[in-house]
Amino acid sequence: MDYTEKTVERKEIFNGRVIHVVVDTVELPDGSLASREMAFHPGGVGVIAVTEDRKVYMVRQFRKPYEAEILEVPAGKLEPGEDPLECGIRELEEETGLRAEKMTYLGASYVSPGFCSETIHLYLATGLSEVGQHLDDGEFLDVLTYDLDELYQMALNNEIMDAKTLIAILKAKGILGEQSSFATTAL
Amino acid sequence: MDYTEKTVERKEIFNGRVIHVVVDTVELPDGSLASREMAFHPGGVGVIAVTEDRKVYMVRQFRKPYEAEILEVPAGKLEPGEDPLECGIRELEEETGLRAEKMTYLGASYVSPGFCSETIHLYLATGLSEVGQHLDDGEFLDVLTYDLDELYQMALNNEIMDAKTLIAILKAKGILGEQSSFATTAL
Repeated sequence: MDYTEKTVERKEIFNGRVIHVVVDTVELPDGSLASREMAFHPGGVGVIAVTEDRKVYMVRQFRKPYEAEILEVPAGKLEPGEDPLECGIRELEEETGLRAEKMTYLGASYVSPGFCSETIHLYLATGLSEVGQHLDDGEFLDVLTYDLDELYQMALNNEIMDAKTLIAILKAKGILGEQSSFATTAL
Repeated sequence: MDYTEKTVERKEIFNGRVIHVVVDTVELPDGSLASREMAFHPGGVGVIAVTEDRKVYMVRQFRKPYEAEILEVPAGKLEPGEDPLECGIRELEEETGLRAEKMTYLGASYVSPGFCSETIHLYLATGLSEVGQHLDDGEFLDVLTYDLDELYQMALNNEIMDAKTLIAILKAKGILGEQSSFATTAL
């Protein structure tokens, strides 16, 4: 069955630097009307950067909606027309000072499809070299390193709160496998 | 270092049924001012319901911000003051007609901490029995079942787009392990 919700009317609410908020009146499959509050967002890119000895570069920064510092993978918003891969390379270098030989695409995800259009693209960065951090004006964050297996345990123990970071850790772990997998196989 | 951003001024933009939008002027750690567009959201709960033979109940519904049908775990918004566990039990039953003997908490996640306060709580529901679906008025969705290992592969292949659903699948797989793990151990 087709569940498409046709827009009957759109009310413009706010057109900001980051989000564009509208309220649509939509026609539901049974012909009744409903209201959809939506925030359009340019989307972003997150990068999980893993060294050969499975060290992961994370950033901790203050996030105003939660009034708290949150541990996240390096990430940033897409500029208009920007390629997600270019954005990932740029944000990784700006925030951590790292350049990667290889960027493996870990897919896109919809952060909150009920009301928001934001899509986050994720990459696994490997073959890392240091080129020097250069944060944007007004950007304040700490760079911290963790062991991938430690982060995976933190994710399972509900100690990682940011959704894109959870997905990046869980996918990277799925792709890179167990640290002890060779030893286990040899037994 | 303390990176707290103090609110200097708050401008109210929109107070809807779902989101509350404001723009704060904040003072950064270096004393300069910046603007923070924020959407406050009541948060929600998602439930990954897995049968004893590793069948997972999913829903497919139209999501207006993407103008597309999206495959997700059953989920819903928190009512004011509602306990996340109660919300998860309610949404699972409404959308899929299932009741669970056991609800295991899979943690909370912040969907987009840069601009949004939405927190999603996730549960793994097991010990399932059918009691009959009863959708809200104006709610249209299809219930579909998948094998957990198939969903895990879909997640790694970037075929699952919804962030909470990705986290739920990846965590459930991490917790429930390999289908063949007993056989492998026996070898």
